[in-house]
Amino acid sequence: MAHKFISEINPGETVDDIYLVKEAVLRSTSRGDLYIAMFVCDKTGQLNGRVWQASEQIYGEIPKPGFVHIKGRSEVYQSSLQIVINNISVIDASRVNIDDFLAHTDKDVDKMFAEVKRIVGTVKNKQLKAIVDEFLADEELMKKFCYCPGGMSMHHDYIGGLLEHTWNMLRAASAILPLYPEVQADLVLAGIFIHDMGKTEELKYDTAFSYTDSGQLIGHITKSVLMLHKKAEQLAAKGVQIEGTILDALGHIILSHHGEYEFGSPKLPATAEAFMVCYIDDLDAKMNQVTRLIEEERGDSNWTGWQKPLETKLYRRRIE
Amino acid sequence: MAHKFISEINPGETVDDIYLVKEAVLRSTSRGDLYIAMFVCDKTGQLNGRVWQASEQIYGEIPKPGFVHIKGRSEVYQSSLQIVINNISVIDASRVNIDDFLAHTDKDVDKMFAEVKRIVGTVKNKQLKAIVDEFLADEELMKKFCYCPGGMSMHHDYIGGLLEHTWNMLRAASAILPLYPEVQADLVLAGIFIHDMGKTEELKYDTAFSYTDSGQLIGHITKSVLMLHKKAEQLAAKGVQIEGTILDALGHIILSHHGEYEFGSPKLPATAEAFMVCYIDDLDAKMNQVTRLIEEERGDSNWTGWQKPLETKLYRRRIE
Amino acid sequence: MAHKFISEINPGETVDDIYLVKEAVLRSTSRGDLYIAMFVCDKTGQLNGRVWQASEQIYGEIPKPGFVHIKGRSEVYQSSLQIVINNISVIDASRVNIDDFLAHTDKDVDKMFAEVKRIVGTVKNKQLKAIVDEFLADEELMKKFCYCPGGMSMHHDYIGGLLEHTWNMLRAASAILPLYPEVQADLVLAGIFIHDMGKTEELKYDTAFSYTDSGQLIGHITKSVLMLHKKAEQLAAKGVQIEGTILDALGHIILSHHGEYEFGSPKLPATAEAFMVCYIDDLDAKMNQVTRLIEEERGDSNWTGWQKPLETKLYRRRIE
Amino acid sequence: MAHKFISEINPGETVDDIYLVKEAVLRSTSRGDLYIAMFVCDKTGQLNGRVWQASEQIYGEIPKPGFVHIKGRSEVYQSSLQIVINNISVIDASRVNIDDFLAHTDKDVDKMFAEVKRIVGTVKNKQLKAIVDEFLADEELMKKFCYCPGGMSMHHDYIGGLLEHTWNMLRAASAILPLYPEVQADLVLAGIFIHDMGKTEELKYDTAFSYTDSGQLIGHITKSVLMLHKKAEQLAAKGVQIEGTILDALGHIILSHHGEYEFGSPKLPATAEAFMVCYIDDLDAKMNQVTRLIEEERGDSNWTGWQKPLETKLYRRRIE
Amino acid sequence: MAHKFISEINPGETVDDIYLVKEAVLRSTSRGDLYIAMFVCDKTGQLNGRVWQASEQIYGEIPKPGFVHIKGRSEVYQSSLQIVINNISVIDASRVNIDDFLAHTDKDVDKMFAEVKRIVGTVKNKQLKAIVDEFLADEELMKKFCYCPGGMSMHHDYIGGLLEHTWNMLRAASAILPLYPEVQADLVLAGIFIHDMGKTEELKYDTAFSYTDSGQLIGHITKSVLMLHKKAEQLAAKGVQIEGTILDALGHIILSHHGEYEFGSPKLPATAEAFMVCYIDDLDAKMNQVTRLIEEERGDSNWTGWQKPLETKLYRRRIE
Amino acid sequence: MAHKFISEINPGETVDDIYLVKEAVLRSTSRGDLYIAMFVCDKTGQLNGRVWQASEQIYGEIPKPGFVHIKGRSEVYQSSLQIVINNISVIDASRVNIDDFLAHTDKDVDKMFAEVKRIVGTVKNKQLKAIVDEFLADEELMKKFCYCPGGMSMHHDYIGGLLEHTWNMLRAASAILPLYPEVQADLVLAGIFIHDMGKTEELKYDTAFSYTDSGQLIGHITKSVLMLHKKAEQLAAKGVQIEGTILDALGHIILSHHGEYEFGSPKLPATAEAFMVCYIDDLDAKMNQVTRLIEEERGDSNWTGWQKPLETKLYRRRIE
Repeated sequence: MAHKFISEINPGETVDDIYLVKEAVLRSTSRGDLYIAMFVCDKTGQLNGRVWQASEQIYGEIPKPGFVHIKGRSEVYQSSLQIVINNISVIDASRVNIDDFLAHTDKDVDKMFAEVKRIVGTVKNKQLKAIVDEFLADEELMKKFCYCPGGMSMHHDYIGGLLEHTWNMLRAASAILPLYPEVQADLVLAGIFIHDMGKTEELKYDTAFSYTDSGQLIGHITKSVLMLHKKAEQLAAKGVQIEGTILDALGHIILSHHGEYEFGSPKLPATAEAFMVCYIDDLDAKMNQVTRLIEEERGDSNWTGWQKPLETKLYRRRIE
Repeated sequence: MAHKFISEINPGETVDDIYLVKEAVLRSTSRGDLYIAMFVCDKTGQLNGRVWQASEQIYGEIPKPGFVHIKGRSEVYQSSLQIVINNISVIDASRVNIDDFLAHTDKDVDKMFAEVKRIVGTVKNKQLKAIVDEFLADEELMKKFCYCPGGMSMHHDYIGGLLEHTWNMLRAASAILPLYPEVQADLVLAGIFIHDMGKTEELKYDTAFSYTDSGQLIGHITKSVLMLHKKAEQLAAKGVQIEGTILDALGHIILSHHGEYEFGSPKLPATAEAFMVCYIDDLDAKMNQVTRLIEEERGDSNWTGWQKPLETKLYRRRIE
Repeated sequence: MAHKFISEINPGETVDDIYLVKEAVLRSTSRGDLYIAMFVCDKTGQLNGRVWQASEQIYGEIPKPGFVHIKGRSEVYQSSLQIVINNISVIDASRVNIDDFLAHTDKDVDKMFAEVKRIVGTVKNKQLKAIVDEFLADEELMKKFCYCPGGMSMHHDYIGGLLEHTWNMLRAASAILPLYPEVQADLVLAGIFIHDMGKTEELKYDTAFSYTDSGQLIGHITKSVLMLHKKAEQLAAKGVQIEGTILDALGHIILSHHGEYEFGSPKLPATAEAFMVCYIDDLDAKMNQVTRLIEEERGDSNWTGWQKPLETKLYRRRIE
Repeated sequence: MAHKFISEINPGETVDDIYLVKEAVLRSTSRGDLYIAMFVCDKTGQLNGRVWQASEQIYGEIPKPGFVHIKGRSEVYQSSLQIVINNISVIDASRVNIDDFLAHTDKDVDKMFAEVKRIVGTVKNKQLKAIVDEFLADEELMKKFCYCPGGMSMHHDYIGGLLEHTWNMLRAASAILPLYPEVQADLVLAGIFIHDMGKTEELKYDTAFSYTDSGQLIGHITKSVLMLHKKAEQLAAKGVQIEGTILDALGHIILSHHGEYEFGSPKLPATAEAFMVCYIDDLDAKMNQVTRLIEEERGDSNWTGWQKPLETKLYRRRIE
Repeated sequence: MAHKFISEINPGETVDDIYLVKEAVLRSTSRGDLYIAMFVCDKTGQLNGRVWQASEQIYGEIPKPGFVHIKGRSEVYQSSLQIVINNISVIDASRVNIDDFLAHTDKDVDKMFAEVKRIVGTVKNKQLKAIVDEFLADEELMKKFCYCPGGMSMHHDYIGGLLEHTWNMLRAASAILPLYPEVQADLVLAGIFIHDMGKTEELKYDTAFSYTDSGQLIGHITKSVLMLHKKAEQLAAKGVQIEGTILDALGHIILSHHGEYEFGSPKLPATAEAFMVCYIDDLDAKMNQVTRLIEEERGDSNWTGWQKPLETKLYRRRIE
Repeated sequence: MAHKFISEINPGETVDDIYLVKEAVLRSTSRGDLYIAMFVCDKTGQLNGRVWQASEQIYGEIPKPGFVHIKGRSEVYQSSLQIVINNISVIDASRVNIDDFLAHTDKDVDKMFAEVKRIVGTVKNKQLKAIVDEFLADEELMKKFCYCPGGMSMHHDYIGGLLEHTWNMLRAASAILPLYPEVQADLVLAGIFIHDMGKTEELKYDTAFSYTDSGQLIGHITKSVLMLHKKAEQLAAKGVQIEGTILDALGHIILSHHGEYEFGSPKLPATAEAFMVCYIDDLDAKMNQVTRLIEEERGDSNWTGWQKPLETKLYRRRIE
């Protein structure tokens, strides 16, 4: 049976489905009765949920956060919709269709990954090729690479977003590189492929998107460089030696791809290849961010609300 | 006879050719004798020149700046090469091969302009097409557009540079637009075509590059918008009305294409099209700037000197 | 009958008057009954309004935003005053005393405009005089100039504010110019007169203050320059040629009058006249902003609340 | 006999006059002979001076810096004018016309000071009046106040500059205050009078302008506040008690008059009076700086050279 | 009887104790009945309080702010705890244990002050010693010094915080000075002792922490320098002359101890001693701030919430 | 025989010693004769050197840069000392006393390293201890650690500077840690020991200080983290597993120790330990920088010249 999405629930309906519970707390009413307040969520939004006549035991069983089967009824309270829950039971994550709970790229993951492999397959430099192949051969990592979001909130913040972002950057680079023959294409393509690989360790995306402790302390930029050096050592262990100049040129692209110190890059771009990766990264991120902010704005105003990171509203009216 | 370039003059040679004179001044030696000091220039560089046994009359005849035929001899003085001038006569600018004195794009101007026309010819929106065609029909302006440098010093700072920059941006946009179907291609292409058009009024480039008074007071961004409105009024006079929404969308792209207030944009990008033009502009400018700084660095060091606007040295060693 | 202002409504009163409706939405109660929530506004503030037992039809008739005649009763709900509306009918804007809904300068508009004309009437330079007169002769524009607010929120944000700000700047310039005889008075006075003229196109101020689409995309600085050039072309059509140097000197004052790139000026002041207009503009804006923030602060504390744009609280205690 | 100014010396002239010596050093030629190199200065500029066949004794007698009578001859050496000195003798500063060596306001000091006294004489608040009078009664301080430069280099950097700047600010305030009736005129006038008083201790201006050690460590802003408190204590000793609120309001104007932390103000303006003093200070400083930079630029170019603190060139062409 | 702390009150309890009342307002219910809303506070937090069936007279008697004895009952209203007050009577501040209302250092004030005296007692320079002793001899000031908080909110924001901060800085300086023998220890120790002394006048801390008017207008940095000069004058009156160089060196440490203009220092550190005081101040402030933010975070997350002034979350998990 | 230092050479002396040659170029005189210009250097400075009557062959043999034995004579040319070289022969670096050419810590390296080992020997946490020991056991690295400069120019820019800086930071941490018992001492000490370890790979210091290519592309911060992870893998290979939480806590200290993004830290401090290392690092660097700038300033002025990175002059006069 299809999941009933949060965004589809109207006032006065019966609710009987699996949802993600977040921030459940036990409270007492003014008469001293206990009740549980929580958020009932899926990928389309969240509503307040209330379990009246609760007990410490019921509260203790609720995962924080986690999946539950909820039976109850939707109602409007103080102008907001909420769910009065009559019955709540824990659901094992394995029985859940996670796609109902995490936003997902609307592109075809397999096709994107195939095209990524095709484009980085054009790398001719033997050492760069060895590095790229070593990453591609790491099945567990590639699985994460295809699943990981591209970020927490700014752009590509959905399952498959990292892949989609990398894929689109590789396509843009392929399209633009012929215009700049002095730029070393192999470095650009290998650099794009690896530049955000550390996000697979920086982000947690099993039930909801967040940073790992390690990700918050170290950051995906440094993590990507550490992964590059680890792959180089694995290659060395197999007898394939990667020269320091190759590792440094590639490492420099990763370290400098945010373009400014203030955005967390410990080095500024110092090669044509580093500049190109930096601009394509920023262009693709902004295009994703801007077009989605414009699409997701509700109402029919010509303008979105104020976008703090862009320091402007966005204009939605098309000339076409 | 081919021009003897400044960069080709060695110590102890006879000099007998046309050069650009700059900053000529009359001085007296410690014994009271008058002499003239000046710079002798062409597009490859400049040397000190000295006319000994000069008079106020000779000095008065020398253009400041302008072209002269010089006869003399090169010598090393205090470790620097200079030219001792025995004979100097004024040359009319019309008799000069200006290409010897102003650096020039190494691309084919006619082919670039043809491709510019071809790409903006794909604009389908009738009003945008009318605007683009009105610009293209302005022969005098198009002549300047094909001749004007792209800037004073940072990037494309040579005759034909504005055309080359616009041409390359249009090619990059054509290559990338298919990846972003939500972006209105007509606006992007028309915006790129016009975004720097005001440089034809901002810059002076007859004998050496400089700003016009008007350019320095008003700037090419505002000038491009003024030119856009002038073309719209010329169209209106012919009965072709351009709607305000079209002028505003296009004007906004021009005004915001420097991307930050600090770089002289009075508006920040607020449409996907404005963001795209801004990024392609910056990418193409940086690629031109970086690859030329790397090429022009003398010596065989792995690094260029410090590049103040980029806050880094540039790394020149290639992996290929 | 005098309008009953929002700020004068007490709990438990009958309400029977015309108000501005904003943000009306249709909602359903927990029992499924429909009701309408809205803001009921005039220039003194706004209250929540509720129409119980509403229908889609009633909701459809309510302007969004617009004027309505409301009959109902004020009551306190959850510590806030709200209006329970029993009857609501649409009112044509032409029947409304707009002064009840938009804050208005407390100065005499006619006197201010007469003094503006008198001061700019002292301009002696023939071309500047022709430009000023061409603006003054544009009756529709002058009507807007006398009515337009001086800004959205920071200073002179009321009907007639643009005139009041321009008038006060002209008076200040007249008072100060004799102290600086090197400064060209004609340029300063003409520059002040035109510097914010583009606000008449940037702002919308029929029922409530907001930006026009065009204003938000282009901004009043560029619009003022465009208006200046349009007037120059109208003069040219009449045979009165304005030299480029005059347009550039005046245009530069307009473009640079915000004084810093970060405040949206695409050029920094480069003439004594531009510096003077910039300082007088800032002084008059800050005096208006600071004295009104001090006056409008409720309570008798020695300090106002924190003023984010000024990065300080303001001290209200007077020594007098 | 009139002083022969440095700017009037031509090549091949006899020199026989008093000059300021700076940076005298003893050097040896390649043959081992000793000579003295120095700068020979007055308020119009400086030239290199050389004493050939020097000795340690002669060198020891030359003041570093100080005044000397020089006899010698001007000549051009390596394209620059220098003075070959045959005879040099020390001159006591008391015998020197210091006005030949320090630039001086071209306004009448007595008239300016009289007008300063007249304007601050309009202060009505008794305590502020007492403070102003206490400053005026300090003859030694007032003598310095009339003599001290207004700054080291940016504006009013000449003898009498502090007085001229204060005088002009008081005149501007008098002209503008009637436009802003809410602003407390007494505070503004007293604040202007005292705001830069600490410069009399911050700067040294006997032979050349420099900072005192104390001035560099503490700064004129804090010194002005310390002087204000000292005057208040002297009044208290005479039985005239100044309330803390008066001292704080006045002290706040002094502390905040640079308008931004980055310019050395430890407090931002928080009263209308502080804002007004800050703007008038900046306006008068910039008008002085800009008009003098324009006047002093040599040649007839429409533009001055690049002005780093203003981030622009200045446009000199007048429309008049 | 021990005070019942706000943080200890549970729903459904009888409340009968003294609390601090803040922001009391008189309101009317929808039926027109009057009630009083207020905050009921102590050092552990605040709750909403309601007096139903109130009158203007009762309201007039409640201090704003001040201490009251409250009898009533706690209950949950809309998920928040509030206190329904049946009886309220004013309490004189003298009868209150202020320590229940103001957070307090957990260190021993007497011991800290003794150690402060011991450490500054090691100052050998006679003039610095005289200044330090003059401060120590000012009993009223020393009482404030031992009681005053170290700041409003960022660090050491509790009674005794100024002493604790100064004490800890002196201990750190004593520990570090032997590593830097070129640094003049006497200046560092005297500088630390006086650097924040002006906070005793800048802050108000009788019932709750706030800025004095004078403190907000002038700031503790300038106030500390004024206090230093006052002490020097008191010494001078006793015949102990303090040289200007001593006052300047010490004053410079005070003025520059915030290290950057943007943090309110009108001078940047220009001596080794000023740098050392600046770093030790910042280190001690940050250690206090960070360790307390980590301790006070509720819950068992590995991270605190976002700390805006630090631009990061803080990581709480220990390796030990 | 003791080396004759550059700073000790006077005009007219015979020169016969080993020096470092830098930037040797072949030039021709105005008569067409070839000569070689170069810098003749040691750790005390550099002079111009000239080999007249040179040939391409002689020029080809001179190392660029490298060591040579020079015979010639010092003379003054155009007021500067230069060396006229009669005989020049190449010297193998192995025969050179490198200490004559590179500035060196004036502390005892062995004692400092012994104390470093003693202090980090107090680390109790087993995993941190294993990491520290693994670094200490790397003899080649420790040799570099004791020899490497602490920086290129700002502070500790001499052989042994990295050790001296680390040693002094460890001593300061040991002195201060008892004041902050909540701070985990083991992490602070291990963090200090490793924080700049990457400088051994970032800097080149065999004949003169410069960055390695790898150092300039990657930076010592990232290199230090890479070294930490390499040591952890070496330990893992020996069966000693280091937990991710330990590596992250330590890695975070390294990544954030510059304290601001703008100074090249990709992460801001988020633990008390990271803040402490950051402050001690900055304090020790500034103390070294400031005291050396004060010592090295020539002349007896109370002030050094302007120090651009500190935005101030430094005051040298002591009160002692």
